[in-house]
Amino acid sequence: MTTHSPNFETSEYKARIARTRAAMAGRGLDLLVVSDPSNMAWLTGYDGWSFYVHQAVILPLEDAPVWWGRGMDAAGAARTVFMAGTDSIRSYADRYVQNPDQHPMEDLARVIADLGGRRIGVELDNYYYSAKAHDVLSGRVEAYLEDATGLVNWQRIVKSPREIAYIRQAARIVEQMHRAMLEQAEPGMPKHHLIAEIYRTGIRGVEGAWGDYPAIVPMAPSGMDATAPHLTWDDQPLRAGEPTFFELAGVHRRYHAPQSRTLFFGEPPAQYRRAEEAVLEATRAAMEVLRPGKLCEDVAAAFNGTLARFGFSKDSRCGYPIGLSYPPDWGERTASFRAGDTTVIAAGMVFHFMPALWLDDGGIEITEPVLVTEKGAEFLTGTPRGLFVK
Amino acid sequence: MTTHSPNFETSEYKARIARTRAAMAGRGLDLLVVSDPSNMAWLTGYDGWSFYVHQAVILPLEDAPVWWGRGMDAAGAARTVFMAGTDSIRSYADRYVQNPDQHPMEDLARVIADLGGRRIGVELDNYYYSAKAHDVLSGRVEAYLEDATGLVNWQRIVKSPREIAYIRQAARIVEQMHRAMLEQAEPGMPKHHLIAEIYRTGIRGVEGAWGDYPAIVPMAPSGMDATAPHLTWDDQPLRAGEPTFFELAGVHRRYHAPQSRTLFFGEPPAQYRRAEEAVLEATRAAMEVLRPGKLCEDVAAAFNGTLARFGFSKDSRCGYPIGLSYPPDWGERTASFRAGDTTVIAAGMVFHFMPALWLDDGGIEITEPVLVTEKGAEFLTGTPRGLFVK
Repeated sequence: MTTHSPNFETSEYKARIARTRAAMAGRGLDLLVVSDPSNMAWLTGYDGWSFYVHQAVILPLEDAPVWWGRGMDAAGAARTVFMAGTDSIRSYADRYVQNPDQHPMEDLARVIADLGGRRIGVELDNYYYSAKAHDVLSGRVEAYLEDATGLVNWQRIVKSPREIAYIRQAARIVEQMHRAMLEQAEPGMPKHHLIAEIYRTGIRGVEGAWGDYPAIVPMAPSGMDATAPHLTWDDQPLRAGEPTFFELAGVHRRYHAPQSRTLFFGEPPAQYRRAEEAVLEATRAAMEVLRPGKLCEDVAAAFNGTLARFGFSKDSRCGYPIGLSYPPDWGERTASFRAGDTTVIAAGMVFHFMPALWLDDGGIEITEPVLVTEKGAEFLTGTPRGLFVK
Repeated sequence: MTTHSPNFETSEYKARIARTRAAMAGRGLDLLVVSDPSNMAWLTGYDGWSFYVHQAVILPLEDAPVWWGRGMDAAGAARTVFMAGTDSIRSYADRYVQNPDQHPMEDLARVIADLGGRRIGVELDNYYYSAKAHDVLSGRVEAYLEDATGLVNWQRIVKSPREIAYIRQAARIVEQMHRAMLEQAEPGMPKHHLIAEIYRTGIRGVEGAWGDYPAIVPMAPSGMDATAPHLTWDDQPLRAGEPTFFELAGVHRRYHAPQSRTLFFGEPPAQYRRAEEAVLEATRAAMEVLRPGKLCEDVAAAFNGTLARFGFSKDSRCGYPIGLSYPPDWGERTASFRAGDTTVIAAGMVFHFMPALWLDDGGIEITEPVLVTEKGAEFLTGTPRGLFVK
């Protein structure tokens, strides 16, 4: 029934499911309710902007996974999931949608009763599993609901060759986005005009790789706004004498390659050149450590130690895993490069290395999508390192 | 400290807060924890893509509201909220971010202890208030947590003159997006190339109104994919002989005007012409009823009754309120045009009237952003009604 060119072979979905089931069994779970759209897509191929209503993939230990969602979205499920057979897609009536008197979880409880399950994992700390959803579901299933937040996410951390191929395509796209930004930015240009060109470039993609939508929109704050990491654009003109950072992601088939660069018109102030030197040197130190067998906290220590020698500090994590994502976050929400994170690094992991500094009068972001190979860290783009000066 | 040109006067935020407090008092609540980014923005002006971490606006019955979020986002709060004074912004350390061992709600519980409150409203069924957040918070506050989902949303349903002005700008933008789509679409054009142009047009906006990002990305499925409402684009070429529907939103300062049109190259099959006639006639019938004093279910009845006369039916709601929104939904999640919804219609309400039909072999969407005035329904765009034929 799948009619889209599938992003992965069925055998790859089956291998992912096997890995997930092993983790479930290790936790004593016999059913998993997966609400995170990235996890749903990773397990089944489901792809659609329907996560604003309640939906899930339900994974038993032995039987095939079930896609469950709103009636009108069953057609999209049929066209994107790898599973054949009508039993694999179940849906609820439209009267449950955003209706305080009837909750979709009443319907999911019936599906779960059909499937069985005594210890059920739920993604308790996920955007798409609300407190109300949990209340309704726990009141209606004859089973123990256990917190399985991150269980699927952790299975995703080492990428398959095909996933890496998609991320490489995404990296080519973000390279092209930064190239277009640098070419087209001019003092006096309204910010939204530049963002429009960046978006156009990202979605056109590159030869052989179409651009998908990013899980986070482009960030491009200037001057004092760049002291804040997450402000989006408006119509203010780009100005000489103030930095603008561009945190952008290239995306192909939902796989992300985020990368940031900071732009100045004319020579940057000395403080920014010092910050640039500190960030590049600390990045080099971190990349030396980012190799199989090291821990995530080792990477943070190498980065922060070097940064301190230059008189800078950063109190937030300096990286996280990336891959398949849906809004509102392109991170995978598993490991972080920070003190105390003892995740062991392995070949096939892909990170957004994120050594951003937000200073008193602006910000500097020179960040990289990085693949871990047997030999160590590999930058996924050829985008020139350092400040962009025009 | 606000340094952005604010979207609204402080007096408007204060009026919104007063309205919300009256609703709180009517429910016996003395504190409200607002996690929905649209509600946070509506109450305080806060604007940033930071909702992928836990954050909230806390509204007491008398004292000023407090923005609470991640440390690095406090700078963005200081630059966008209307409240002055450092007490109005509180933040938590980065080690709480996406860390299974430490939850941000531990910090929010301390803020709430400072502010007091014995009956606290929380948005139990919101994307940004997870089951885990509720678990942690309810275990740590000496107060009763009550479900206040929708409490703020319902205050937003009648728009102020300035909100309507922003939506009118958004409507001019979506008009321009459909114009660009119709001009540039050609058989054989890869879908993502067309989406790139539509995005560029939407973000460039129109004279006097810059384009903001939409809470839902453009939907543009073709042929059998158009039987599914929420599939996004890929690189397949546009083809003669199959419909493509374009569900797009113009957005200005986070205010949305969604609108859909369906495109054919060459004369559409007779079935689509019949569906077009049915939808346009049923829309006219619904618009006659969409006026102050009528109920939302009256609009649905007028629409569905007329549709039935043409031999079509639609089992999902045919509209919902729109305005200020953040991903993943541009609807306000209050009223719906469907049987049983007895919301009384009033002047100043704005709806996405959504008479989409998903047929066996495709879909037809001809949908409208509509303002309710004292005189009745006003279409907000001049986009030609009916099928787009090229």
